[in-house]
Amino acid sequence: MFREVLAEVVDRTEGGIAALVMGMDGIAVEQYLKEDAQPFEVETIGMEYSVILRDICKASELVDGGVAREVTIQGEKLTTVIRLINEEYFMAIAIRPDGNFGKARYLLRTGASKLATELGA
Amino acid sequence: MFREVLAEVVDRTEGGIAALVMGMDGIAVEQYLKEDAQPFEVETIGMEYSVILRDICKASELVDGGVAREVTIQGEKLTTVIRLINEEYFMAIAIRPDGNFGKARYLLRTGASKLATELGA
Repeated sequence: MFREVLAEVVDRTEGGIAALVMGMDGIAVEQYLKEDAQPFEVETIGMEYSVILRDICKASELVDGGVAREVTIQGEKLTTVIRLINEEYFMAIAIRPDGNFGKARYLLRTGASKLATELGA
Repeated sequence: MFREVLAEVVDRTEGGIAALVMGMDGIAVEQYLKEDAQPFEVETIGMEYSVILRDICKASELVDGGVAREVTIQGEKLTTVIRLINEEYFMAIAIRPDGNFGKARYLLRTGASKLATELGA
């Protein structure tokens, strides 16, 4: 189930490299890496960002922006889109900078809502 | 100069509320608040996010994603787009969740490149 959802998000996004479902504690539930992807430490990315994500949620609530639902980080070599599933879990996708960012967001949103039931949201 | 650039970004973005130019130390260089905006602590937002931004830059470099250039945080009540100008300064815009996110990103990018010369990038 998890793997199927992740594979769909990555494979249908032009420039998609990898995706994962992870707990806020940085422990991955499942991950998927595209076959033609460069050797890539997807779990490391997720762990780094899970720390950041907690800060962001805290800050977003503090500043009255409401609960943070989606965070995008665009780097020179990689764009990462993070979507909260519930308070315990999030989903993230890494895409190439020239990848289809809009589609990644859309597929991540639909994927996250599929997994929400599974993860008891 | 700063104020004109910020005003252009906010006023031309549907749903734009406020924008600022801030140092990584959390001290604002300039800020602009739309006249019809709710009372809104734009400087507080920037300070919160400047802390997060440093973490994000660090994490993005660590995970070989290259230097982070743009970060978007979508909350329930507010979307914030942050764009790095150089290593010392960033620009941020706050828009309503139903605002034109794509236009905010575009205007922020062009605005940041205008300010880059001014800020000695």
